[in-house]
Amino acid sequence: MDQELERIADLVAARIRAQLSAGATPGADEPCINDCTACGQCVTKRPHSVQALRSQGAARLAAGPGIEGTVARDLAGMIDHTLLKPEATREELEQLCREASKHAFASVCVNSCNVKRVRALITNSAVKICAVVGFPLGAMAPGAKAYEAREAVRDGASEIDMVINIGALKDGDYVLVADDIRRVVEASRPALVKVIIEAALLSDEEKVAACTLSKIAGAHFVKTSTGFSKGGATEADVALMRRVVGAEMGVKASGGVRSQDDAKKMIAAGATRIGASASVAIVTGGRSNAQY
Amino acid sequence: MDQELERIADLVAARIRAQLSAGATPGADEPCINDCTACGQCVTKRPHSVQALRSQGAARLAAGPGIEGTVARDLAGMIDHTLLKPEATREELEQLCREASKHAFASVCVNSCNVKRVRALITNSAVKICAVVGFPLGAMAPGAKAYEAREAVRDGASEIDMVINIGALKDGDYVLVADDIRRVVEASRPALVKVIIEAALLSDEEKVAACTLSKIAGAHFVKTSTGFSKGGATEADVALMRRVVGAEMGVKASGGVRSQDDAKKMIAAGATRIGASASVAIVTGGRSNAQY
Repeated sequence: MDQELERIADLVAARIRAQLSAGATPGADEPCINDCTACGQCVTKRPHSVQALRSQGAARLAAGPGIEGTVARDLAGMIDHTLLKPEATREELEQLCREASKHAFASVCVNSCNVKRVRALITNSAVKICAVVGFPLGAMAPGAKAYEAREAVRDGASEIDMVINIGALKDGDYVLVADDIRRVVEASRPALVKVIIEAALLSDEEKVAACTLSKIAGAHFVKTSTGFSKGGATEADVALMRRVVGAEMGVKASGGVRSQDDAKKMIAAGATRIGASASVAIVTGGRSNAQY
Repeated sequence: MDQELERIADLVAARIRAQLSAGATPGADEPCINDCTACGQCVTKRPHSVQALRSQGAARLAAGPGIEGTVARDLAGMIDHTLLKPEATREELEQLCREASKHAFASVCVNSCNVKRVRALITNSAVKICAVVGFPLGAMAPGAKAYEAREAVRDGASEIDMVINIGALKDGDYVLVADDIRRVVEASRPALVKVIIEAALLSDEEKVAACTLSKIAGAHFVKTSTGFSKGGATEADVALMRRVVGAEMGVKASGGVRSQDDAKKMIAAGATRIGASASVAIVTGGRSNAQY
């Protein structure tokens, strides 16, 4: 199994290296990724996005112009409404849950110490609880990371957003990285697990290896960013991640998604979930200056 | 006990409020805090600093000019040599441990996933392992924070730097804050526990409450900052924290301590431990641009 991991990661990395050295942009064969004009033809141009969305329960993906209202309604169920700053107060959590319940966001995404509290505050049964784990550095010992996930699920979380072990990934210690993810996946059942790869700290090869290992380890989503590092989601990263994991996993774009336009671009690039604190602005068509 | 916590925090907060509203700077009766001229008279002017240092095993505190070499040797044993960025590689950890062993720093301060690794790399038996826990947000569920601490101690850590629950502190939920600390203290025995209060996110009243609760909960040190938030250690914060915890606890200044001069100022203000990635610069008299 260890050799298999090494082999797959090497193969994927070699493919990307070859593309880069040939001067080709990864994904150049999929023109709507970087030049999306919101043509509404995603069902033909990006069928994997639509398939993946459907597998997540979304009825349809609308990305064309002039149908803002419909898009917004569709968008709500794809958004993890997020509050992760360490100084978040009870009042701010109450507001988060009120908004999530009102707009029927996919989930509220909170730190693990707040899972119990938001469970009592959500009034819309469609809204799930998503807890971050090993957040935002991903540098907890694997046993502790799995324990935190298990506790969060016991407290009421049905989705876990964990941060990958970034240092081990950079060291090429793929067995450690995969084992770290697998332990969280096993500890979190039946909750979904999203693996945050913190793309801003990674080379393209490392992003590919991170997505490969997340898939092998049984995670359900890969996610671009914590929102606490150098940069957030980019369309290019979302597109790359989608290509590596294929249609059967989710891709969550998070960090710096502040408007409906941002969200649509991420979805056009392959995202099936959006992490944002600007969720209300996204569904109402405004724009937020929120940091995360 | 709960009422007692409330009462003490209220009392201390009221005292600070009174000082502030009277226009007096907290600590104005201790002139060498803000106007330290490195006069070398700390033993008479700041006896609590010297007492606290002695209790930590330091032979003496030299802060006068013209004795750089001696200060540097004395400083080394007060420094937690720190590497906490999530993308830290094996090579960087090896360098950290080589430097700590060479200069006899108090400890290497690392993320909990790296405790086992550095245990095998430290060659000077005087150098301890310090693990951060609930880092850097402090927003893990209390049980998970305690578990991470216990695992780190099992892996070889003899010091634990935990982050306080900042949101609960701002909510005035002192029982939750103290319980969170107490669980880590109990899970970490016989290791020392330092409580990071993340001063840059707190008002002066909140800083006082944080130090009060840390002391009541049985922690051994209070620490200014994670190095991952808005700001790092300031002399004023160190002085305030020292006044609140008294002589029997340690105060660790961390975040933005980049030179011997910075370190001396923190010690003059009451710090008994320095957290820095610029440790080599501090003992050799240079200056570093390191972030943490």
